[in-house]
Amino acid sequence: MEPERCVTGWAARDSSGHLSPYNYTLRNAGPHDVVLRVIYCGICHTDLHQIKNDLGISQYPLVPGHEVVGIVTEIGKEVEKFKIGEHVGVGCIVGSCKSCNACGEKMEQYCSKRIWTYNDVFPDGRPTRGGFSSSMVVDQMFVVHIPENLPLEQAAPLLCAGVTVYSPMKHFAMTDPSKRCGILGLGGVGHIGVKIAKAFGLHVTVISSSDSKRREALEVLGADEYIVSKDTTQMQAATGSLDCILDTIPGWHPLEPYISLLKINGKLIMLGVSKEPFTFPSNRLVLGRKSIAGSFIGSMEETQETLNLCAEKQVACQIEIVGMEYLNTAMERLDKNDVRYRFVVDVAASNLDDNQSLSSSY
Amino acid sequence: MEPERCVTGWAARDSSGHLSPYNYTLRNAGPHDVVLRVIYCGICHTDLHQIKNDLGISQYPLVPGHEVVGIVTEIGKEVEKFKIGEHVGVGCIVGSCKSCNACGEKMEQYCSKRIWTYNDVFPDGRPTRGGFSSSMVVDQMFVVHIPENLPLEQAAPLLCAGVTVYSPMKHFAMTDPSKRCGILGLGGVGHIGVKIAKAFGLHVTVISSSDSKRREALEVLGADEYIVSKDTTQMQAATGSLDCILDTIPGWHPLEPYISLLKINGKLIMLGVSKEPFTFPSNRLVLGRKSIAGSFIGSMEETQETLNLCAEKQVACQIEIVGMEYLNTAMERLDKNDVRYRFVVDVAASNLDDNQSLSSSY
Repeated sequence: MEPERCVTGWAARDSSGHLSPYNYTLRNAGPHDVVLRVIYCGICHTDLHQIKNDLGISQYPLVPGHEVVGIVTEIGKEVEKFKIGEHVGVGCIVGSCKSCNACGEKMEQYCSKRIWTYNDVFPDGRPTRGGFSSSMVVDQMFVVHIPENLPLEQAAPLLCAGVTVYSPMKHFAMTDPSKRCGILGLGGVGHIGVKIAKAFGLHVTVISSSDSKRREALEVLGADEYIVSKDTTQMQAATGSLDCILDTIPGWHPLEPYISLLKINGKLIMLGVSKEPFTFPSNRLVLGRKSIAGSFIGSMEETQETLNLCAEKQVACQIEIVGMEYLNTAMERLDKNDVRYRFVVDVAASNLDDNQSLSSSY
Repeated sequence: MEPERCVTGWAARDSSGHLSPYNYTLRNAGPHDVVLRVIYCGICHTDLHQIKNDLGISQYPLVPGHEVVGIVTEIGKEVEKFKIGEHVGVGCIVGSCKSCNACGEKMEQYCSKRIWTYNDVFPDGRPTRGGFSSSMVVDQMFVVHIPENLPLEQAAPLLCAGVTVYSPMKHFAMTDPSKRCGILGLGGVGHIGVKIAKAFGLHVTVISSSDSKRREALEVLGADEYIVSKDTTQMQAATGSLDCILDTIPGWHPLEPYISLLKINGKLIMLGVSKEPFTFPSNRLVLGRKSIAGSFIGSMEETQETLNLCAEKQVACQIEIVGMEYLNTAMERLDKNDVRYRFVVDVAASNLDDNQSLSSSY
């Protein structure tokens, strides 16, 4: 047997969430595995929750990162879909049971045995480690191609945030240009929501808690309308105007004002979860045949489609590229919503594996 | 001008809800109107709420009844769709604006200017009166044909309860025999839900609060499975098994246990409203792409389709036919859920107009 390769990632050791270099080994590539050297990795709000154990399920050391773009350095014997030297992406999950209905119907994101890209365990008991790392070994089923004309740094946020908005638009039949789509919350996911909705040709209304992002939403991101949710006049004027709303607000919030913005048959699609239960008045749903739905990331097929659409339509997210040494600062800024709109870490530039002697001291 | 015809209905005079004969006049038939002599009228739970002013909007005297089957006695000059002597039905609404999007897309039940069959006003300010009456004058757009091979008494409950379950099954694509449908609550609407779901060939699971209707649900109504909602073992065993649940429970109830019964992509469709807000845990929707939706009666086109389907498939509701003189007793029994499953009043047998001298004294 070959010795396992030793790699360096940045790990949180406890719920302080402070990240620092950490060495671990990767399994040798199995017949269906792809080994990739990480180039870029986006920072998702979930990373922040996980490193700080906000969900109460964090296992330390924890190497976050699930918007991973890399280059293939090795492939397993049975891998035909990928070639060495090709650019690839990895998103939120790296495994599923492959035998349940969800897997059979290509919605492996809903497989109850899905394996998260980090803070989870492989069937052999080994912990999963994310993309803030020099390399990863991933089952080819959970690897996607990066289209040639899509800049690599642009691909990163699409692997979680992008497919999170693409998937419900497709599933709930909101891709026809006649549709009017609301984007509730203009953070990392919301801003990509505007971009992807516009790529489909939809009419896009941003609904935000303040007026501060209006100009940028309309002039830079390309939204058609902008509503401040606290402004009752603006909200009233938009009553019954939207076919769907993608609700990207991460915590608890009232739903009734947004249900009112929906047309008959309209759908409020929640993309985030909150521990506190949500409430709604039943007459608002019944008397307008409206729905409150949930949607969770997307399938591997949809992830590939998201990348392809964004390459074809030249969708560019607004990202801030930072180095690994900036990771803790970036997390602090994200916690304060001080980023427009997504951090992407240039992992390759930091040559993590060159610093292994350094990184073992914490 | 012809004098207006004087008719007799049974009206509630106050929130005691006590019903007794009441004389009033009907408008003369306009060019698009159909005049019908009432033969049967079903009793809906809403009638009970309205006569007792449970919704706080009742205007007395109030003549209830919105599951009306009759025979055409006169038609307006422009009416081509109906002939004198033909059997027809009238449901929950008798008017709409005919110009909004909802009307334009044949979902006039969601028109914000819809006119309720009773306890509402026509554009000329005249109150609307329901089917517990000798005759009605109704705009032909809100009249449907009763298919020849459908017994008239059977048609009555289909005009509200029937289309209330048919419409969401059609709209939410739950008519394919591969689908597994839950019916939550086995009252007037629920039992017709079982019948219509079986007419579509669906697999039907009744979810009831007690075991008391099990045998009847399975052996008489034709349901495939029966779950007692309080039995955690039965509920657990059915986790993730249903494509949709038609929720016919009229008041507030927890939703989480029923959301758990849904498959990935499953829909909980609420058919009733409650003043108290409902709650749900967002993770249950998000992590299974599930929806909570509402649906309200059905369109006139869907009402006709409901009658046609039930005629074609020889769907027979379980009804108890009573005379007008039994109306107050029937309302009391309905209030105690003491009916399996729908009262239908034989309005014609009581020759209401022959007793006009009697009925003016209250």
